[in-house]
Amino acid sequence: MNEFSRIETFLEAFSRRPSPAGPGDDAAVLPASGRVQVVTTDSLVEGVHFSRRTFRFSDVGHKALAVNLSDIAAMGARPTWALCALQLPEDVSTSDLRQLSSGMSALASAHGVSLVGGNVARSLQLSITVTLAGEIPKGRRPITRGGARPGHVVYVSGPLGSASAGLEALTDGKREVSKKGPVTVDKAWEALVLAQRTPSPHVRWGLEASRFVSAGIDVSDGLLADLGHVCVASGVGMALETGALPVLEALLSFAESEKLVHTHALTGGEDYVLAVTVPKTRAAAFERHMARLGHGAFPIGVVTKARELTVDGQRWRGGTGFQHFT
Amino acid sequence: MNEFSRIETFLEAFSRRPSPAGPGDDAAVLPASGRVQVVTTDSLVEGVHFSRRTFRFSDVGHKALAVNLSDIAAMGARPTWALCALQLPEDVSTSDLRQLSSGMSALASAHGVSLVGGNVARSLQLSITVTLAGEIPKGRRPITRGGARPGHVVYVSGPLGSASAGLEALTDGKREVSKKGPVTVDKAWEALVLAQRTPSPHVRWGLEASRFVSAGIDVSDGLLADLGHVCVASGVGMALETGALPVLEALLSFAESEKLVHTHALTGGEDYVLAVTVPKTRAAAFERHMARLGHGAFPIGVVTKARELTVDGQRWRGGTGFQHFT
Repeated sequence: MNEFSRIETFLEAFSRRPSPAGPGDDAAVLPASGRVQVVTTDSLVEGVHFSRRTFRFSDVGHKALAVNLSDIAAMGARPTWALCALQLPEDVSTSDLRQLSSGMSALASAHGVSLVGGNVARSLQLSITVTLAGEIPKGRRPITRGGARPGHVVYVSGPLGSASAGLEALTDGKREVSKKGPVTVDKAWEALVLAQRTPSPHVRWGLEASRFVSAGIDVSDGLLADLGHVCVASGVGMALETGALPVLEALLSFAESEKLVHTHALTGGEDYVLAVTVPKTRAAAFERHMARLGHGAFPIGVVTKARELTVDGQRWRGGTGFQHFT
Repeated sequence: MNEFSRIETFLEAFSRRPSPAGPGDDAAVLPASGRVQVVTTDSLVEGVHFSRRTFRFSDVGHKALAVNLSDIAAMGARPTWALCALQLPEDVSTSDLRQLSSGMSALASAHGVSLVGGNVARSLQLSITVTLAGEIPKGRRPITRGGARPGHVVYVSGPLGSASAGLEALTDGKREVSKKGPVTVDKAWEALVLAQRTPSPHVRWGLEASRFVSAGIDVSDGLLADLGHVCVASGVGMALETGALPVLEALLSFAESEKLVHTHALTGGEDYVLAVTVPKTRAAAFERHMARLGHGAFPIGVVTKARELTVDGQRWRGGTGFQHFT
């Protein structure tokens, strides 16, 4: 299969919405837009972010777009167009590529994202780099990390620690059930595996929350690590309560102690939920607004003047949480 | 070196022009623009597009941006912002990364491109994926591949075949002169090596030509292959004359026969010059305009009604030229 037929195979699953210049030109043409735009790029690399033993090709395609959607969601933007640069080893078959493409196109379609172009290169290691753009709705401003102030309430958009527990379930041999195709796990832990393989970025949540929030970020490196970025950018600290952290039932049954549940929730990466701060005066209206739309919004702590992250009143002694904070 | 310090090292060489949200947020924020935009993405992969034996890290950084600039040039657009996704093996040192960054930032600065964001991932194989955007000047339209009509004149913006000869000079052991650092070659062939390692995309040429052209493309896969794309998109053919193909003196001294000179010029890839078609009635004005600005514009043939590419009246029998055409 040469580069051109690989491109054709990859594109088959996507609905073609030709930009003014049509597909196949040197660059995609986008109509002028009067809106503020946001752009991000993120790569998924085999052996680093996934393995073929634990991910199906459709999962890889889904996740490569999902991690970028989460960044756009964290800015309070509506995703618009994507470019996809594939690096494909020889052993990726046409069928593998179709699955990868179908995983990505289904998620793109669900979020109204147009794939406007891309590139295919040979490589030793499978990787997918997606560039994703979004636009800020009229009258709003992008959510940034720098606006948290003492007294603001800290919220997350969904359960924490699921994806890191899901990875543990997938990679820990004891939990493996089938060897035909990618690993499967005990049914009780399926929700965790789903969170690891095919995260659902909280795009609509971010768009709605952007009316209320003072700062925000997506939880990709782990809650404490990511809230640390907000603290640094805002010049504040935060006090979190473990009792308030939302977690899945499956995590409670998976983790062998309450301490391990908290470790997953506080430091596990790749949950791709959003964490935001909301001024105290707006908190009740924010909660009502989100509840009316059926979006969860879980208060987990408050912003403090003291520039440190505390968990249940204690300065966190764990690893990853503070790596980039101090 | 962790991901964050690698990002910092890479960014040092670039002048920071913080977008409204400042660097370090989940996505870069771009002010609203009333102009039509074009976007493209292209990857440079070690072992496929370059090797460390024949390229310095600064060359790699330069070329990763240059190949994208050439796509933007081919659309008749002015480059604006870039994102860069790096995949770095462990053995890439801080000094290597600084060189890569300095090669890219020098070219970015020469073309007024702002690096607005990016990503660093670990990998086994070094690769650099750049996403580049441009905007179409007010009152103009993007150059596309579909507008060539019988009788239009075919032009290229500069010498052909240099980059493929340069690659041959770099990889052919007989021509190697030094083994300290990347390969060097006979001084007479330096211009060819320069074309291979650090191509100069014809951005200003494309912007000026866009006032006159009916179709255009950049020569990345080889002249015949790329003109083949224009022929297919436009539903036409072309008749080219080898006597009219612009080549460097160095190629004449490098290639062992006139036939090899023509093979490099017709099928050698990576020259990153532009090939365009201009309506016959506009050709004289086009040539005058480009000459006044000091830009070369070399007529190499005409667009024909018959849907085939001919060279000196013969249908081309060589390889790559027709691979994607028929």
